[in-house]
Amino acid sequence: MNQAEADELRDWSRFEAKSLNEECGLFGVWGHPDAARLTYFGLHALQHRGQEGAGILVNNNGKLNRHRGLGLVTEVFRDEKDLEELTGSSAIGHVRYATAGSANINNIQPFHFEFHDGALGLAHNGNLTNAQSLRCELEKSGAIFSSNSDTEILMHLIRRSHHPEFMGRVKEALNTVKGGFAYLIMTENSIVAALDPNGFRPLSIGKMSNGALVVASETCAFDVVGATWIQDVQPGEIIEINDDGIHVDQFTDSTNMTICSMEYIYFARPDSNIAGVNVHTARKRSGKILAQEAQIDADIVIGVPNSSLSAASGYAEASGLPYEMGLIKNQYVARTFIQPTQELREQGVRMKLSAVRGVVEGKRVIMVDDSIVRGTTSRRIVKLLKDAGAAEVHVAIASPALKYPCFYGIDIQDRDELIAASHTTNEIKTIIGADSLTYLSQAGLIEAIGHDKLCLSYFDGEYPTPLYDYEKDYLESLAKNGVK
Amino acid sequence: MNQAEADELRDWSRFEAKSLNEECGLFGVWGHPDAARLTYFGLHALQHRGQEGAGILVNNNGKLNRHRGLGLVTEVFRDEKDLEELTGSSAIGHVRYATAGSANINNIQPFHFEFHDGALGLAHNGNLTNAQSLRCELEKSGAIFSSNSDTEILMHLIRRSHHPEFMGRVKEALNTVKGGFAYLIMTENSIVAALDPNGFRPLSIGKMSNGALVVASETCAFDVVGATWIQDVQPGEIIEINDDGIHVDQFTDSTNMTICSMEYIYFARPDSNIAGVNVHTARKRSGKILAQEAQIDADIVIGVPNSSLSAASGYAEASGLPYEMGLIKNQYVARTFIQPTQELREQGVRMKLSAVRGVVEGKRVIMVDDSIVRGTTSRRIVKLLKDAGAAEVHVAIASPALKYPCFYGIDIQDRDELIAASHTTNEIKTIIGADSLTYLSQAGLIEAIGHDKLCLSYFDGEYPTPLYDYEKDYLESLAKNGVK
Amino acid sequence: MNQAEADELRDWSRFEAKSLNEECGLFGVWGHPDAARLTYFGLHALQHRGQEGAGILVNNNGKLNRHRGLGLVTEVFRDEKDLEELTGSSAIGHVRYATAGSANINNIQPFHFEFHDGALGLAHNGNLTNAQSLRCELEKSGAIFSSNSDTEILMHLIRRSHHPEFMGRVKEALNTVKGGFAYLIMTENSIVAALDPNGFRPLSIGKMSNGALVVASETCAFDVVGATWIQDVQPGEIIEINDDGIHVDQFTDSTNMTICSMEYIYFARPDSNIAGVNVHTARKRSGKILAQEAQIDADIVIGVPNSSLSAASGYAEASGLPYEMGLIKNQYVARTFIQPTQELREQGVRMKLSAVRGVVEGKRVIMVDDSIVRGTTSRRIVKLLKDAGAAEVHVAIASPALKYPCFYGIDIQDRDELIAASHTTNEIKTIIGADSLTYLSQAGLIEAIGHDKLCLSYFDGEYPTPLYDYEKDYLESLAKNGVK
Amino acid sequence: MNQAEADELRDWSRFEAKSLNEECGLFGVWGHPDAARLTYFGLHALQHRGQEGAGILVNNNGKLNRHRGLGLVTEVFRDEKDLEELTGSSAIGHVRYATAGSANINNIQPFHFEFHDGALGLAHNGNLTNAQSLRCELEKSGAIFSSNSDTEILMHLIRRSHHPEFMGRVKEALNTVKGGFAYLIMTENSIVAALDPNGFRPLSIGKMSNGALVVASETCAFDVVGATWIQDVQPGEIIEINDDGIHVDQFTDSTNMTICSMEYIYFARPDSNIAGVNVHTARKRSGKILAQEAQIDADIVIGVPNSSLSAASGYAEASGLPYEMGLIKNQYVARTFIQPTQELREQGVRMKLSAVRGVVEGKRVIMVDDSIVRGTTSRRIVKLLKDAGAAEVHVAIASPALKYPCFYGIDIQDRDELIAASHTTNEIKTIIGADSLTYLSQAGLIEAIGHDKLCLSYFDGEYPTPLYDYEKDYLESLAKNGVK
Repeated sequence: MNQAEADELRDWSRFEAKSLNEECGLFGVWGHPDAARLTYFGLHALQHRGQEGAGILVNNNGKLNRHRGLGLVTEVFRDEKDLEELTGSSAIGHVRYATAGSANINNIQPFHFEFHDGALGLAHNGNLTNAQSLRCELEKSGAIFSSNSDTEILMHLIRRSHHPEFMGRVKEALNTVKGGFAYLIMTENSIVAALDPNGFRPLSIGKMSNGALVVASETCAFDVVGATWIQDVQPGEIIEINDDGIHVDQFTDSTNMTICSMEYIYFARPDSNIAGVNVHTARKRSGKILAQEAQIDADIVIGVPNSSLSAASGYAEASGLPYEMGLIKNQYVARTFIQPTQELREQGVRMKLSAVRGVVEGKRVIMVDDSIVRGTTSRRIVKLLKDAGAAEVHVAIASPALKYPCFYGIDIQDRDELIAASHTTNEIKTIIGADSLTYLSQAGLIEAIGHDKLCLSYFDGEYPTPLYDYEKDYLESLAKNGVK
Repeated sequence: MNQAEADELRDWSRFEAKSLNEECGLFGVWGHPDAARLTYFGLHALQHRGQEGAGILVNNNGKLNRHRGLGLVTEVFRDEKDLEELTGSSAIGHVRYATAGSANINNIQPFHFEFHDGALGLAHNGNLTNAQSLRCELEKSGAIFSSNSDTEILMHLIRRSHHPEFMGRVKEALNTVKGGFAYLIMTENSIVAALDPNGFRPLSIGKMSNGALVVASETCAFDVVGATWIQDVQPGEIIEINDDGIHVDQFTDSTNMTICSMEYIYFARPDSNIAGVNVHTARKRSGKILAQEAQIDADIVIGVPNSSLSAASGYAEASGLPYEMGLIKNQYVARTFIQPTQELREQGVRMKLSAVRGVVEGKRVIMVDDSIVRGTTSRRIVKLLKDAGAAEVHVAIASPALKYPCFYGIDIQDRDELIAASHTTNEIKTIIGADSLTYLSQAGLIEAIGHDKLCLSYFDGEYPTPLYDYEKDYLESLAKNGVK
Repeated sequence: MNQAEADELRDWSRFEAKSLNEECGLFGVWGHPDAARLTYFGLHALQHRGQEGAGILVNNNGKLNRHRGLGLVTEVFRDEKDLEELTGSSAIGHVRYATAGSANINNIQPFHFEFHDGALGLAHNGNLTNAQSLRCELEKSGAIFSSNSDTEILMHLIRRSHHPEFMGRVKEALNTVKGGFAYLIMTENSIVAALDPNGFRPLSIGKMSNGALVVASETCAFDVVGATWIQDVQPGEIIEINDDGIHVDQFTDSTNMTICSMEYIYFARPDSNIAGVNVHTARKRSGKILAQEAQIDADIVIGVPNSSLSAASGYAEASGLPYEMGLIKNQYVARTFIQPTQELREQGVRMKLSAVRGVVEGKRVIMVDDSIVRGTTSRRIVKLLKDAGAAEVHVAIASPALKYPCFYGIDIQDRDELIAASHTTNEIKTIIGADSLTYLSQAGLIEAIGHDKLCLSYFDGEYPTPLYDYEKDYLESLAKNGVK
Repeated sequence: MNQAEADELRDWSRFEAKSLNEECGLFGVWGHPDAARLTYFGLHALQHRGQEGAGILVNNNGKLNRHRGLGLVTEVFRDEKDLEELTGSSAIGHVRYATAGSANINNIQPFHFEFHDGALGLAHNGNLTNAQSLRCELEKSGAIFSSNSDTEILMHLIRRSHHPEFMGRVKEALNTVKGGFAYLIMTENSIVAALDPNGFRPLSIGKMSNGALVVASETCAFDVVGATWIQDVQPGEIIEINDDGIHVDQFTDSTNMTICSMEYIYFARPDSNIAGVNVHTARKRSGKILAQEAQIDADIVIGVPNSSLSAASGYAEASGLPYEMGLIKNQYVARTFIQPTQELREQGVRMKLSAVRGVVEGKRVIMVDDSIVRGTTSRRIVKLLKDAGAAEVHVAIASPALKYPCFYGIDIQDRDELIAASHTTNEIKTIIGADSLTYLSQAGLIEAIGHDKLCLSYFDGEYPTPLYDYEKDYLESLAKNGVK
């Protein structure tokens, strides 16, 4: 395989994979006799937030047990036998996102620690901006890490704190780590939930009819387990959940809510509510506003399945154009190690996405998508539609152009991966082969979501916190290639 | 577990599973150096037609080899190693549908026969109406069957025919079997495709850019492998595909095309064309006509994912109401042996379908579905929507009421399973808890599909052929409970 | 890898594998509430007779069920779940031997047939000499075979017989097949056991303390399940075992017992008794007689583990020399796909057999082995011993030279594989690098076993039956290279 | 299952399992292009030292990689794919022994540590007597352990040492841990081997023909990889192996060699040499001396396979009685989750060991075994032999009575498990149902082994070191039940 073929294959794979990855999903339950099973269903509802691995840790009268593994929740927990060892009335669980190649069972959470003076469990969603320097400092004073996950750092900080109370030690540790983080800690008699001072990642608390308390990265998990939303964990909060109920405290007063806008745009499930806003509704509104801003003359509106269907239906409604199913995604998505050869790809073989010739043939199509990362996927979908006979393909993106990396938990930390960091909209239009390309304005996005307590640094480079360990590299990358 | 709990669990499982099952999907390719890999992608596109097992049989210069297994295509063919043994320039493949409990590797197709005078492969989609009597007769004269599949019968008939030519023997056998059938036979130098005299099941032929010929149950498989549709196999046709191209012949002149209407309504993928009609377009049209017939006063229209989304968007467009995402299906569908306990189900735990409270709360909802089989699923979805705050739920079905079983390849052969066989529409409305229930008229369905060469016996009991072995039981069941 | 390296690797693998393979092992039980579990233990005791696959078929009040798979008994039946489906008070089981490459689940027995008029199970140990012609004839009259095993032939013959009684049909079939065979047939109300007219393969009947009857290829299986030997199945016998007990009949009067001598020499377990003779005792006696015949001047006697340890201890006892552990076999034998590279093999890496330097260094060693097939293994063991410092290595074989193939169930049908077919003893001695080479005389073998109702064709080419389908090829091979 | 049945089942399982367990086996190689593969073969030769799990860690130009898993070496490394990731010219490997229930992948060695200032690997054989107090101290100062293995302790001590040189830090750590230990440490440019000041566990160094250096728990691994023994690691030594060769140093001068006598008696492979003494030869000698000491009048001598065959052949030789194969062990030993029910056990079903009726019937049998732990196994074997018709069974044990637990690496730390701790020889004879019972004298054992630098505390309670954390419990157990 020569270099060109290798590039082609990489492009192909990216076309077939999601190009942005969330860091994880959290779920916890306190006070239910079937805690592990509930957590299983909760994690299944959060599966879209991470597919590399999953784990559940239970607290059985102060004794912690864990089962974890690589793969989807339904692969890690295959049958009743996998739940048998997980008796207990409280549990925390975790789904971890997939990165190429590095799947390692040691990194799968929740972590489980057994000390001579008690046991602890720990699960984490987010990304620390000072992990590298903290880890180095800790190692210099004798700390040994058992994974290459940042998550362990918090436990080392807790164990080295000299504060006389456990909650005091946790607060000290939370004030030392920086960046985006939502933590669940299982102690022998409580679950502790904590959120970074900016509240980058969502975390909510719900209640079941039998009084059990649940905590989850997204409210869609509440619906699945039959729980009702009570409250969101607020930036800087540390909440203890135990037999006495919910105890809210702050580990810092210096907070500033800037929730990740990409949760609304792409990551979260449409049936989740984030900061009180339903995700489907925000997306549909973004499609409507996009229609008003774009004013494209066309015959039909189609969405790229599945994340852009809400925005597309909003676009169709606002524009008065028919909303059609012009692209079909094979619902039997599965990891496969069998790929089309170069020759088959040239002959048109593809696995996951098909254009519906009977729908798009001869039509001027508005193709609504949520975002463009590298441009590769968009180029291929435009080609699919044109090969299926579309007369024109107008690409309408239901968010502003992505120009800056994320350091708070989204898996793009390199500006080279973002096509809009180095190309104008017109250049991108040409590269992806579209007849026109329109982005939603930043004001339009804020209007669609309905509030502005958002991290929008993806679009404008205004990071709400210092970048710590990332600062130097980031400034160098900015210097290297300016933003268009 | 007492009987009530057992019933409840069975209902639950049915709610979570599809209630109608297709018998299978076929794919074949002639004249491509990577025939097995192409078949892999073709079968993956047909995965919705059967999930119990899959197999591929290749012809490598006259030598046949096969790999088959239980599970999804991506499970049976896990990596390149599984394709290595399958070198050859032609192949036939099969996906088989899932029935409860009876998964058996012996029944997974294609079948592979090695005789002293040559090898043959065989794959089948459909259901024979005289299988039982043929099997009994054959066994009485010494035949041994290696599976409990009807498919083997054809091979026994071929091998016992005394016609001097192979194609003559096949024609004799095809004239002996009755019912619905699409066959692919792999010989040492050809693929033979044949369709029953009524053409109950779809079967089409396509061509790739390199000249290779492909045959598939649905045209969506052509798009996935980059092939172009050429022609449909017609009722009563027997087609030989070999290095000389396509040779069309008839095994009978007594034909009468009555293609299964449920293919349009429910089974086929929206991007397939059946008898020249795009499935999505037919479904959207059925939704439009349903809107005109129903005239319901409501706020929003939602579809039951995934098969009813086309009809729902058509309904919304024709009615002028907003099309919303009121129900979410977890895209990580997987077989799991972990189920909610009775207690958890009562507390509201569910895995696959969620109502979006933010969308339906306080709204008068029109819920469009493709069909009602037992009523259980509809009842649960209506409850989901009401629990999520829907003010009213009007159920609109984009096909007429299902009252009669199918004997040609759909997995319902018992009228007791069809709620409309013994209840009026008003009774069903009450049972499922809807505020209103409307079915599409049979004339509306024909108009939506655009032709009437259809088997509509599901709705009117007019079977286009004698029922042979099923006749007696069927008449008894009619006598037992009349149709409402 | 060039040809020489390929040959070297093949030699290596043979060195590591057994060079002679038995065709199978049978076990059956009638009248025990835990029949499948008993059969599991019985098959485990017979594991040495076949490692490719295993299966158990039970009779549960007339309803037959089966579980089978590739691998060892403990791999096919991994846990209680695999036995759950096998409820029933009678069972038959089978272990099948391993051949390179051709492992195929379809060939794993017992076979299970479901007919409209009842069900049957079938298991077979042996080899038919007229299988090819019978199969061809049957196919010409429409028979379809589902495996490439000869075993199915009997069932086709039974089903095509017109005898009015089932047992009459079986007898007719048994008189049609030729060669070496032991069969177990499970019917809905009995187990039928049958042995060929020469009784080439062993088959015995035993009884448990609770009255249950068991049948097994070797009596070692009786010890394992706590049963006591009652009687051997005699040549030409057909025995029906049912709730009334044991019913002995003959399917032919024309019998001539010539039990396979290799069962005593190599295949059977030392704790089995064949035709009333304990295998260990026969082997020890063969070692004693060999010592008397050989009269070698040496320091110690060692055996090649495991099959030659009995003969070696007999040799030591008769010669008055010390019996030492000069070769160690790694007891963790397992199939592995990880092999030493050519370079590592040259550096002396080996997996299964080690010479004990502390024992053999400086010693004149008599190395007792049961047989020499290709000579490759012997050459390597002699080298092992010399590399470990043995001063002299005298190879003493406790059976006559193998010169002729077997057609009754041992996996060598080609004289080219037998080094003694084309080389003198002196030539073989040189090839294997031994200081001397002695074979036991044929008279000595008969004396050691204690009776002469033996098939000795391996050594003298006197086949006790016509060879049917093998006749032509065999005569050609004799003509090609004469016997030395 | 009532208590009596549970006890019976536990006894049964113990009968079927080895009753004493070694702590582990170590293997390392420096300077071979195929280091991982060599280690695979080396570990396979050491498989008898541990079956719970295995791992290999390679050093690829300073970059460490590891593969580990639960199960046998051939299960953890199934095919070439498992070796692919393990490129490198040096490696260390480990096999870990099986304990009931607690199999945990986290405990499988070698451990692999990645620090900001370099990587380290660590593998351990033995048992620390001050592990509990060290672990507690370390945790109090913030250390986090990732396993419940003692092995990690050494790494925490190394990382917390303030010595300026790495080797200095290791020496400091080695002087802090107490008990029995053999360590292999992989650094980025060397392998470090170290042995406790008493040399309880064996550890030797060998050389391959290409100059590569190997280190192994037993010399049998050298034979398997074609290496030649050079030297043993001596008590208190710390040896660095790198591209410059072997550098021997001492971490302490206060040494006193007392190698574990059970290595000679039971654990080690017969083809290993320990401290220059061949294990088979020592065992055979122990059998000879036992024969002289015992002077039993009998007909035949048999050994309990496999560990007692050498001693039995020595006994036979010295006594002039025939050495017979009276017990057969099924060579297809495998872990199975299918067990005989209580009823089947009563009916005589067993899996692993059979008595050979044809050999023992009517005979006065001397049954030689290496040791008696709980007495359960001996009782069952005696019963096996008597059930098979033995006239008398005289049990002769080729070592003194086991009365005291081990704290240096053998898995018996509780005197309650040792029948001889609380019963006289005569009592034991009665319990196991033997006609006589004889133990080898301690002087006889020393004579058989040929030197007295042995730990014999098992027999006389004279521990060569303080017991640290075990002291208190041990003294209490002594007080509770005196020694007979």
